[in-house]
Amino acid sequence: MIGDYLTEVRQKTPLVHNITNYVVMNYTANALLSAGASPVMAHAIDEVADMAGIAGALVLNIGTLEEAWIASMIKAGQAANAKGAPVILDPVGAGATSLRTNAAKQILSDVKVAVVRGNASEILALGDQAATTKGVDSTQGVDSAVQTARNMARQLGCIVAITGPEDLVTDGQRAVKIKNGHAMMGQVTGTGCTATAIMGAFLAVGSDDPLMASAAALAYWGLCGEVAAELAKAPGSYMIALLDALYTITPDQLDTDARIEEVAA
Amino acid sequence: MIGDYLTEVRQKTPLVHNITNYVVMNYTANALLSAGASPVMAHAIDEVADMAGIAGALVLNIGTLEEAWIASMIKAGQAANAKGAPVILDPVGAGATSLRTNAAKQILSDVKVAVVRGNASEILALGDQAATTKGVDSTQGVDSAVQTARNMARQLGCIVAITGPEDLVTDGQRAVKIKNGHAMMGQVTGTGCTATAIMGAFLAVGSDDPLMASAAALAYWGLCGEVAAELAKAPGSYMIALLDALYTITPDQLDTDARIEEVAA
Amino acid sequence: MIGDYLTEVRQKTPLVHNITNYVVMNYTANALLSAGASPVMAHAIDEVADMAGIAGALVLNIGTLEEAWIASMIKAGQAANAKGAPVILDPVGAGATSLRTNAAKQILSDVKVAVVRGNASEILALGDQAATTKGVDSTQGVDSAVQTARNMARQLGCIVAITGPEDLVTDGQRAVKIKNGHAMMGQVTGTGCTATAIMGAFLAVGSDDPLMASAAALAYWGLCGEVAAELAKAPGSYMIALLDALYTITPDQLDTDARIEEVAA
Repeated sequence: MIGDYLTEVRQKTPLVHNITNYVVMNYTANALLSAGASPVMAHAIDEVADMAGIAGALVLNIGTLEEAWIASMIKAGQAANAKGAPVILDPVGAGATSLRTNAAKQILSDVKVAVVRGNASEILALGDQAATTKGVDSTQGVDSAVQTARNMARQLGCIVAITGPEDLVTDGQRAVKIKNGHAMMGQVTGTGCTATAIMGAFLAVGSDDPLMASAAALAYWGLCGEVAAELAKAPGSYMIALLDALYTITPDQLDTDARIEEVAA
Repeated sequence: MIGDYLTEVRQKTPLVHNITNYVVMNYTANALLSAGASPVMAHAIDEVADMAGIAGALVLNIGTLEEAWIASMIKAGQAANAKGAPVILDPVGAGATSLRTNAAKQILSDVKVAVVRGNASEILALGDQAATTKGVDSTQGVDSAVQTARNMARQLGCIVAITGPEDLVTDGQRAVKIKNGHAMMGQVTGTGCTATAIMGAFLAVGSDDPLMASAAALAYWGLCGEVAAELAKAPGSYMIALLDALYTITPDQLDTDARIEEVAA
Repeated sequence: MIGDYLTEVRQKTPLVHNITNYVVMNYTANALLSAGASPVMAHAIDEVADMAGIAGALVLNIGTLEEAWIASMIKAGQAANAKGAPVILDPVGAGATSLRTNAAKQILSDVKVAVVRGNASEILALGDQAATTKGVDSTQGVDSAVQTARNMARQLGCIVAITGPEDLVTDGQRAVKIKNGHAMMGQVTGTGCTATAIMGAFLAVGSDDPLMASAAALAYWGLCGEVAAELAKAPGSYMIALLDALYTITPDQLDTDARIEEVAA
């Protein structure tokens, strides 16, 4: 039952080490706390290996990237690899600038990544497919990136998650669709980054089946979007209601309301 | 009708590229999303020109400034100039430290800026007038800076906006006062920075009349302050109500409730 | 009466200069504004001395630390020392990585610090006691660090505050316990950092009795936690209710509801 992942996050409060962008640091930390995990943000080259060494998962996010951070991400990623902790990559804005596209590719080359989560434009950009990214927003539908995601997953031996109105997660062999979510999530900055961070928490406790752990995390966050939409009708209060929903949703509720279905890979 | 600017922002969802301070990155991004624009934050010297090249406006904000960011702002500004996209400068804390005063002047010298928005202390500091800035807060009234603003506008060929209890916007020939707003806005950090960012969104769609686009943006944000004050009585919930108001205010409401009047320049 | 500190903060609106971590910059600034103080965030080596020179207190916080920031913190600290403004240190994550432990010790060595506030793990780490810090969260109870705190306070001639379910503040001779607070505060990121920042505001107006000013600040923030818990049942809305409480709590209410008691040092 996918609710078990949430139960385990709340019981084990895994330490999730984030090297993430300035825009979402506060929101991501609060989201992880509300979910039941324990967040830490640390990016200095002198401490990332120490921090990754005590963490249950590492989340790398290339929004507001600068050159020095890439080296820190790789060092942290290799420390997590050495420890066997899952590394989750969010290639924010890949395709929008060559700095970001190249950085994401370099991380994928130098670090063994467990999961890559991006929107369709970002996933296409990493697969060298023609794509345009409008800043950090996708201009393409999820379906357009499925083939690229499957190829990436097979080639890199990782999970690839494409998020959008419906999400798709694949390990190259199996694929699942997650139909939870709400359009208002697109009106709040960092909801994609938060999805990635929650995947980090779920992978920290569920690394034996990373495909289902990833799907469960996306269903959970999507369900938060649905629950929040019943309470809040504008983005400011919705942003807060999302954090509340992470806290109030129970494992049973997640079991009942998750809409995950296996599809042809 | 000034509501048309808001209609256009929501229809065109202009990409607004922000190089801004750490304190307000999240709030500014959310404010732009709530208004209907599409924000992106990117500051690395290696990508700012790429990002400015796809953006409809560039917002430069010198809060939490450090040396390396000045070069990025200038590079981004010149890329925006080359493309013809408006550049909006927020000289946060000019007058408080020489780093900030000098940085703002250097940007004004190296980049063709469409609009400068500051509080009275900041505008006075840029005009080499005696002024003191208490950190990032003004110690002077808007009226004290009108003469300086007019001179700056004429000399630089730009719009200068002084915000405070009442706002004044001038292009050196014409001047308008905007009487929307609420005192509680001063209890929330970054409401000035947010004003600047929203001006970016409005300029992106209204560059044919930057004076009115600027005034419309300030009236809209001030009106948000008024609407929020009816719903929230303390700064935390007020901060959220402001974001909600950006989303719920309609173009018709803005037309009806904006209090903009032409004054002697 | 300890409510007098709050009265003075609201009357004098002291400028509190923060060199703090990316995660909490926005929340800290809003908390200081809600309390009645005037926050400024500035970290560049080229301006920290200028900024410290106009501030009533300086708050140094080593979360999301990187090498260059340590030099800025020391420079700012020495400028505050020269001016006689109190310096408050928050050794976030000391004990978790050697970068943080060493940076905190270096600051304590090079700057005359008025108050150190940390959780038990962090205080123990600074006293070279065996301790483990789980990222930025304590794994030890307040009582375990009392002896270390007293020794540090005597040796450095400063106040040491250990926060947790109950807080303890000591100057090495006297000690007080503060019993205000609520467990939900642990579900919001940066509530410890915010405690430190509010101590900065209280020290700025109450440097004649830094022990009581520190205790008053912690009672005030803990009382906010209690008031917020009556209004909000989940972390998102709780985070906002905390900011509201900073604004709505009156000096009389603080006098009445503060639970501060002298204990054996």
